[in-house]
Amino acid sequence: MKTGFVQFRPVFGDNAGNLETMTQLISSVDADLLVLPELANTGYAFTSKHELGDIAESFDDSQSLDELQTLAVKKNCSLVVGFAEKAVGSLYNSSALLRPDGSRELYRKLHLFGAENLFFMPGDIPFAVHNIDGARIGMMICFDWFYPESARVLSIKGAQIICHAVNFVLPWGQNAAVFTSIQNRIFMITANRYGAETRGEYSFTFTGESQITNVKGEILAKAKQKEDTAVVTEIDPGDADNKCLNKHNDLFAQRRPEFYGDIGGKATL
Amino acid sequence: MKTGFVQFRPVFGDNAGNLETMTQLISSVDADLLVLPELANTGYAFTSKHELGDIAESFDDSQSLDELQTLAVKKNCSLVVGFAEKAVGSLYNSSALLRPDGSRELYRKLHLFGAENLFFMPGDIPFAVHNIDGARIGMMICFDWFYPESARVLSIKGAQIICHAVNFVLPWGQNAAVFTSIQNRIFMITANRYGAETRGEYSFTFTGESQITNVKGEILAKAKQKEDTAVVTEIDPGDADNKCLNKHNDLFAQRRPEFYGDIGGKATL
Repeated sequence: MKTGFVQFRPVFGDNAGNLETMTQLISSVDADLLVLPELANTGYAFTSKHELGDIAESFDDSQSLDELQTLAVKKNCSLVVGFAEKAVGSLYNSSALLRPDGSRELYRKLHLFGAENLFFMPGDIPFAVHNIDGARIGMMICFDWFYPESARVLSIKGAQIICHAVNFVLPWGQNAAVFTSIQNRIFMITANRYGAETRGEYSFTFTGESQITNVKGEILAKAKQKEDTAVVTEIDPGDADNKCLNKHNDLFAQRRPEFYGDIGGKATL
Repeated sequence: MKTGFVQFRPVFGDNAGNLETMTQLISSVDADLLVLPELANTGYAFTSKHELGDIAESFDDSQSLDELQTLAVKKNCSLVVGFAEKAVGSLYNSSALLRPDGSRELYRKLHLFGAENLFFMPGDIPFAVHNIDGARIGMMICFDWFYPESARVLSIKGAQIICHAVNFVLPWGQNAAVFTSIQNRIFMITANRYGAETRGEYSFTFTGESQITNVKGEILAKAKQKEDTAVVTEIDPGDADNKCLNKHNDLFAQRRPEFYGDIGGKATL
């Protein structure tokens, strides 16, 4: 299965231009699954809810998602793309899965980072696994990685590939993805943006280096820190169904869920 | 608070000699808490249950733990030490907390690695947080790190310092501890052994490089790959009570336990 990521530098507020850049990059490769960065339609550095509301787009009916879905159909390629979502009465930092059969799925970031907490609502949709042609995928967004529960829940639910749309500003995300792959024996596609945004009191530099890791935590492909690129590698998603680290360790069969009960409860601190 | 680790090379089957080495290293430093490696009393490369049963020691009454506890009292220092445990009808890969007031606590490794599964029983004691003078500590052992639930449960229960007795043979453990510290904002003391053991069909090389990480994932101290050493650093365990990554992110308050329910259930794979 040909899977990959698209890395680019969204221009803040230029939804049409960002769509054009994404379209060009997606069109440049042959793939079955491509993951694009977080907030790829709008850019990142919002300074108010009002501003966000003006350029966020709806999941069901928006120029960015509709045109990308048309491209998904044309290219026969599933796309996962991060987007600023305007829902009824709420704004979310979301990802959409756009399938080549015209269907789509939604995930809303459960763990918001920094000032995102001022502008977005935290997600309200459970982690879910979705079938695409040839694989079972799960979506999480950027700071969700800080919570090991995110990838764990997706993996327990049967995800083979975690589609991780990100706008990394902290230095750890790419390395952490290696350990997430190892511990869950899943593929991670980390689609990052690059460039910098300074708006109002906010200033961010994004780290690029989008990557794909296999179930052993090996880095199959990695982008440079600053480049527009679409990178595709051949993987067998079925590798993620075998949770055996060695002949004595079936990682998931040997979980001890009876001792993990506190994780689903409330923290005591 | 003065916390640290003892790194050495246990000699297989030489419980008395290993106890002497530990005693010398512990005696060489001034500390409030010291963590020692996994299976520090016996060495690692067992080839049969029979052999293990012959040299494992009981938690309540054993030369190794009794003498180490005497040392804990004398030095006014809490010790966490990995040991092969002989219980009634079962053998465990365990850690003991030996307090200077003469009390002790027990943890039995929940996630066994490789051929350990042939010789030891998986642990049967829930992750627990224990008070020592100046801190709340939790114990986990080596391969437990492969399960992010281990450190997470301990942190949720209020551990400030995770005392990680290990015999690392895989290359990832020390780096993974950095992310465990970051994600949980806790101190990790990783006490590893070094050297190699070849017995029967088994051959292991242990990686040394014991380390201490703070709540930001910074490495406060690190041993060499091969050296007997006791290393102590000054830390403030209270740093682990502040889970704020920045002014918008209180990591634990912003957990979404209602979406993590699968972790405490059974895996679907």
